[in-house]
This record gives sequence, C-alpha cells and structure tokens, in this order.
Amino acid sequence: MNTMKALSEETIKKIEKVVGKDGYSTRTADRYAYGFDASIFQSSPDIVIQPKSTEQVSGIMKIANAEKIPVVARGAGTGLCGSAVPIKGGIVLDMSRMDKVKEISVGDTWCIVEAGCVYNDINAALSKYGFQFPCAPGSAEAATIGGMVALNASGMKAVKYGATRDFILGLTFVKADGEIVHAGTKTIKDSSGYQLARLLVGSEGTLGIITEIVLKMATKPKAAASVLAAFKSAEDAGKCVSAIVAKPLVPAACELMDRVSIEAVNIALKNPLPDCQALCIIEVDGEPEVVDRDLKTVEEIATSVGALTVTATKDKAMIAKWANARSSVMVALSSLKPGHSSVSLADDMIVPVSKIPDAVVAYQRIAKKYNVVVATYGHAADGNLHTKMLLNPLSADDWIRGEKAVNEIFDVTVALGGSVTGEHGIGISKAPDFQKERATAMTTIKAIKNAMDPNNILNPGKMEQWEGSILKNLRYPCPEFMTQS
Amino acid sequence: MNTMKALSEETIKKIEKVVGKDGYSTRTADRYAYGFDASIFQSSPDIVIQPKSTEQVSGIMKIANAEKIPVVARGAGTGLCGSAVPIKGGIVLDMSRMDKVKEISVGDTWCIVEAGCVYNDINAALSKYGFQFPCAPGSAEAATIGGMVALNASGMKAVKYGATRDFILGLTFVKADGEIVHAGTKTIKDSSGYQLARLLVGSEGTLGIITEIVLKMATKPKAAASVLAAFKSAEDAGKCVSAIVAKPLVPAACELMDRVSIEAVNIALKNPLPDCQALCIIEVDGEPEVVDRDLKTVEEIATSVGALTVTATKDKAMIAKWANARSSVMVALSSLKPGHSSVSLADDMIVPVSKIPDAVVAYQRIAKKYNVVVATYGHAADGNLHTKMLLNPLSADDWIRGEKAVNEIFDVTVALGGSVTGEHGIGISKAPDFQKERATAMTTIKAIKNAMDPNNILNPGKMEQWEGSILKNLRYPCPEFMTQS
Repeated sequence: MNTMKALSEETIKKIEKVVGKDGYSTRTADRYAYGFDASIFQSSPDIVIQPKSTEQVSGIMKIANAEKIPVVARGAGTGLCGSAVPIKGGIVLDMSRMDKVKEISVGDTWCIVEAGCVYNDINAALSKYGFQFPCAPGSAEAATIGGMVALNASGMKAVKYGATRDFILGLTFVKADGEIVHAGTKTIKDSSGYQLARLLVGSEGTLGIITEIVLKMATKPKAAASVLAAFKSAEDAGKCVSAIVAKPLVPAACELMDRVSIEAVNIALKNPLPDCQALCIIEVDGEPEVVDRDLKTVEEIATSVGALTVTATKDKAMIAKWANARSSVMVALSSLKPGHSSVSLADDMIVPVSKIPDAVVAYQRIAKKYNVVVATYGHAADGNLHTKMLLNPLSADDWIRGEKAVNEIFDVTVALGGSVTGEHGIGISKAPDFQKERATAMTTIKAIKNAMDPNNILNPGKMEQWEGSILKNLRYPCPEFMTQS
Repeated sequence: MNTMKALSEETIKKIEKVVGKDGYSTRTADRYAYGFDASIFQSSPDIVIQPKSTEQVSGIMKIANAEKIPVVARGAGTGLCGSAVPIKGGIVLDMSRMDKVKEISVGDTWCIVEAGCVYNDINAALSKYGFQFPCAPGSAEAATIGGMVALNASGMKAVKYGATRDFILGLTFVKADGEIVHAGTKTIKDSSGYQLARLLVGSEGTLGIITEIVLKMATKPKAAASVLAAFKSAEDAGKCVSAIVAKPLVPAACELMDRVSIEAVNIALKNPLPDCQALCIIEVDGEPEVVDRDLKTVEEIATSVGALTVTATKDKAMIAKWANARSSVMVALSSLKPGHSSVSLADDMIVPVSKIPDAVVAYQRIAKKYNVVVATYGHAADGNLHTKMLLNPLSADDWIRGEKAVNEIFDVTVALGGSVTGEHGIGISKAPDFQKERATAMTTIKAIKNAMDPNNILNPGKMEQWEGSILKNLRYPCPEFMTQS
C-alpha cells in the first residue's frame, strides 16, 4: 500500500513541465481544502493538480506510475462516501478545468462532454435542442459528469430514465501507466467486444482517470404533473410505491419520506408538507394526454392503499415546491437536534421495490434498538432509500452506536436482496459491507484492479482494499477516530 | 494457444461424473453438428456437454482448467460471426437445457432467466403481466438470452428500447477456474463497485460462462402503427431517417432497404413491397394518442425529404407483413443469383445516424469496385446497417474479392465514426477489423482477459487473439480456405 512522503522538488518540477505553473498547488490551504469531499472523512493530498486535457492527465499518470504516487481524481467533491478523499496522500487530480460540452450531435442523439462538466450545464446545453440528460443527482448544480460516471450516480428520475450507466456510449480514460484508451463508440449501440466503457462506471477512480464521455441524450417530456399522498405509516407509503410499479406504471419520480424527514423539513421550511407519518411525492411526465391519464391512475392507487390525503397538481411552482421540500431533507435534518449533525453512514441502500415496506420497518426498528435518530426517505420506486443518521459528531459513543446500527441496516438490506448503495458509491463508508455483499466477486474485482493498476496508485486503500472499521480519517474533531487509515 | 488432441477416457469419465451419462456426447454426428453456427465457419469440438445447472458448469470448468481444454459456450448457434465455433476443438457447452424463466417479479420489474432461455419464450412469459424484453433479434424464435448477453445482441426495436446491455441488472457466471460469481443486483440500479455484469456483455464466452441473468422488464406499448415510405435513392432514405431522429422523434423501429434488398424480397415473397430504389419502414408505438401524433409527424417528415410514396397503417396484419418482408431479406437474397449465397462478412456495421447517407453511398461504391453484389438494409435509426454479400462460395476468387470489399467497407465505417459491429459481435469474421477499430483498448482487453482466464481456455483464438485473414475454417467446400486456424 502506498502512503506518501512529501513530494520531492524534482517530482514537482516534472509535474510543472506537464501542467504549467498555474496547473498545480502545494499550498497548505489548497491541500487542506482538497482533503474533504461531502463525506465524513478527511485526509490531505501532497499536491493538487488541475489538468486541462487528456494529454496532461496522461503526462501526470506517467510520472505518478514511475514514482508510485497515489492519484485520486476529483470532480466537485459532492460524493458522500469518501471516494475523493486521498487517504494515502499523493496527488488529487481536480478535473474541474475540463468542463466543456465539446459537441452536441442532434442527428445522432449524443453529446461529448469533458469529465469536469457540471450536470446542470450539460442540461442547459441540451435543453435548446429538446434533449436532456435526466439522471438528476441531488447535487445537480455542482456534480460533474466524471464523478457521476465514477459512481454510477443518479437521483429522483432514475426510476424512469435510468442511472448514469445507461447513458454512457463511450468514454476516454487514462490508465495508471498513462496510456490513453478510447472505449465504447459514438453510436447508440455496439457489439464490439467487452463493454469496457461500462466497466469504468462505478470504478471510483480505481481503474483509470475518465477524461471525456460520449453521452446518449434523452428527449425532453412535453408535460409533467405531481401527486402528494399522505399516509398513516411508512409501511402504507411503501405499499403505494409497490402498487404503482406493479400496475405497471413508470413514474418520472417517486419519493418517499418518513415521519422524521417530514418533521425536519416542516421545521426548516415552515410547513411545506402535510403533518403525517409518511408521504409519497409521485411525479409523472411525457405527452400531455398520457400525463393526465397517469395522474388519475396514481391518485386512484394512492387512495386504494389507504392514503389519508391525495393532492394532485400540474402547477409548475407547486411541483417544484414539493420537489424542493424533498431535496431539503438532508440539510433540514441537522436542525432537528441541537449539537447533532446528519451524517452519511448507511445513507444509500437499495432493495427490490416490493421489499420497500419491509426495509422501512426494519430500519426504524434498528434505529430504536441503537437509540439513534434515523430519517428514512428516498427514490422509493427504484427501491433506493436514504437513511440519514443524526449523531453528535464529537461523541465517540454516538459514532460507535451509529456504526453498529449501520452494519445491521446493511445486513438487513442485503438479506432483502438489496445492495448497500444505489447511487452514492462505496468509497470508504460502504467498503466493509461492499466486501460482504460482493463476496463472490472479490477475487475477480481484485484481479481486474491488479491487471489495470499493478502499482496500485489509483485511489488506493478503498472499496475492496479497505480494512477494518470505517471510523478512521473522520473530519470531525473526535480524537478517537481521527487516526489515519 | 490450446489446440486439442482427442480427450482421454479418464477425462471423459470425470465429465460424466459431473453431468451424468446423458449430459454429454462424443458421437461423430453430434461433434459435427456442433461444429457450426450461423456463420461461414466450421470446426468440430471433441465433446458436446449439456449442463443442467450453474454447479455442473462449475464442475466442468474445473476439469477444463486443470487440463487446459478449450471451452466454447453455445446458445442456439444463431450467431453470424463464428463466436460459437470451437476453432481449437475441446468442449462445446450447449446451454440449451438451462432454459427456464425462474422468476418474474412484477413488483420489482425484473425477471430471472437461465442462459439457455429462448428470447420468444421470455416474452411469452412476461406478456401476461404487461411487460416485455424488447430487444427483438432477427432470430427471436431461437436465440437464447445467454448468447444475446454474450454478443450484446439487439434488433429492430433497439433504437427505442436499447440493446441487451441496457436490460442486464445482474448475472451469474462461472469463471475459467470454476468459481461462481454473482455480479450486479436484483435492483433497478446500483453503485456497488465496477459494473462487472456489464463487462461480461459482449465478451462472447471469453471471460466466463454466463448461466443466469436478472433482466429488467419494459412495459408493453398499448398501440402501434407503421409507415412505409418509398424513395428514389438510398441516400434520400437515409436523409429521412436522420430527419426523424433529429426531430427528435424516437421510433419503435426504423428499417431501411436498398434496391437489391427490395428486389430480392419482391422475388421471394411475390411483391410485398413497392418497386423503388430504397424504402424506409418506420414503426411507432406507445399510448394511442401519441402513436396517432407520431404517425402524422413521420408521414410529414418522409414527404418533406422527397418520398415518392408514403403509406401509413395501424392494421396489425399490414404492420406484420411489412416487418416480415424486411426480416426476409437475408434469406431472400440467395434467390437473386443462382449458385450464389448471401454470406455474413461485413454484415453489421454501425455509424452515427447522421452518417447513414454517406455510409450507404460508400458501400455501394465499394461493391461496384470489387464487382460483388451487396444488399444494404438494417436498423437505420440507430445507425446499424447490414450489408450482405452474394458470393459463389465455391470460388476462391469470389472470397478474395469479398474480403477486399469487406476490409474497405470496415475502413469507411470506422472513418465515419462507426463500429464494425452493432449487434452481431466479433467472433472471427470481424476480428481483424475489431483489432484496428479498438487499437487503443487492446492492451487493456488483453490484460483483463489474461487476469480472468490465465490458461486461455475460454473461447480461445478469436476477437483480440485472432491472427491473419478470416478466410480460414470455412464451412464451404472451397479447398483453399478450409485450412484450420
């Protein structure tokens, strides 16, 4: 395992030759800032490099590989699992300068974007041609496409439109040794050997540095509507979701919120939501007549499974208000309990949709057992539930109870046929349970990693390589757990 | 490279222990029959094994790996590139006994099928729940899902619904050493590390033996309609396709046929098609009102780009008649020229849709240059063109001219930003040009192959391993080219 000593003057000179004087920084302030992402972890790199081209990335990788320097690629740092935290020091490759939409080929229904391109910027560019890239991550205004590919990110719209993996036609990536690989095609499909481009999806910077992506474009819907249904229990809300999916009806979004989430949002945003035990916000989109019909169907289903109230709207402002209320859960939670923060531990489980009611009940039982406040909400129609935990981040006892609860939540999830992560990735916080969940694939994963990165310089120490408890490298001043991994 | 001697009595006894007396055959007749697929190649295995379970496949792989016996997995043998032809002898694993739809989970919108399950059987099972698996390969009544995954197969409906890769949530495969791996999930999305399941897509049996697949189900459309537009040139037909895609309008299918294809079908099926230089058959499906609107739009576009005649229908029989006329091209062609057969050489190019007109013109120019009859037709809205060549398979000169034409067709395709195969795969017939097209990925492909199959027993000698001309192992009695590879 590589753990960096500070870089030599000579190495820094070589790096400067590749990216120029303004292309890197070793200033303490920058190294500190790039030691964080949106996760609970922190660890500073030795140098921050901001490449402007695939060729510059290749030049950097040749240096890093020759000197066995760890390299962690970084988009916007909005990841919640620590994938972009350089726990072994070394280089952070900040891709944010490679932020161009290089080509939009309307007649071919694809576009070519650089890895540092921001999600909302891509959609702003596609929108005028009647197209969209609809994965809709919660961090849409900041998240970069490179990071989205590395984590197979998605969001509220994945149930209808798919996750990032479903839009990747091709990509350019730089291998550990600096070789530039063009994977996939500029066509809507191909049978030209291994789907290499899709292997890189979810690889979190451990197989190569993604620099450019060929994205399939989806057509923009002409109309949209939304239904808000309130329930007497999270279980009933879960039944509503299952009934919609089994109809079959594919909503554009279908969000579930439990008691804790609703309460937090109503406190933070002055009661945008009905006061109830659980609710679903179901959005439908498409051609106008179809939206009208689906809206009715959703209302009927919600009523039939015992909704207390069912409110439907086609008013854009109202649709946005509800969506915004849902999006605010994560931030709002911290306002629930003074001195407590909502932390990303077991924050992204996914189960078969029919198991949503069981999962919600189990998570609530586990929260009670370990005396932790857990908010359960998420993209229920694709089975993706987020459980944010409220902890006092200065209390070792809170962390220990939290970790126990997490492990039990993960075990239940996998027992229900699910996975520990639906859209946030593995990084550090899911690593131990990822290794359990993917036990049969571990030798294959390690063989592929070793074949593509024999010196183990690409984001080392995470995912299949992580060892022991996740309570290391914590960003919070809780001395017990600030030890380096 | 492994090239088999006959199997020892002792080895055959070990195999019998795993699959039983009725689970294998070394009879000459069986070995001969399993030496073919739908391609132009032939080479007999030493033994044909018909496993009934993943565990049996694992048992066989342990024996094969220990004794370095080549293993070629086979579905229905409908492949057109030689992927299932055992050019190094050894074992053919006939997966046709693993043909069950094991589970259909309506509430979770996925089903679990065994690798030997036939495409049409899957859809028959899904249909009663309002779902479909819509990839629609030309060989729908025979093609198995295992083969479809191995080749990322698709067909007429891929333009709207996607190729096989887009429906793979998870799969079970057996590695060269017999280890059983469960990749992917039983959920609609996941961010749980490398998308291993999708790496196996397109691997053509060279990375592992796929035994079970978790398939995402699509909802069935409520209505459908079709437009047949006749044109004065293939170029105009290509322009029609580009205009539809750029609208943007996503048809359910959009087939293009050139002069040669139309003529062949009209001779074979007694004139189901208008007598013209080129035509498009454009199908739309979905909700009734949307189908009506899209139908009008397609008619307007066809007229605006100069169609000679435009006929629209919602009559199921007529829609089926047109689709059947298109599906018959490959067979019909052989009736065009006595003593000539339509052979699968450059049979599956794909280009960015906007390049369809250029591609069609270039293919016709090349056919003329080498004095070969080439029919051009295919799934034009996703850029996938099939050029079948009419050759006298007993004439060495015909094969040589054919191969020259093929190489030039492939070079033009790649120069237009396309790929040598959109849905049929690499196998043998695309191998040399695949190696050119994927030059930057070859070291990565070889590293992954070596990491997963160090003894090189999984479908050896094809794809990245193929050497020299493809005119070897030919099934036709043309002595010059019956030499073994």
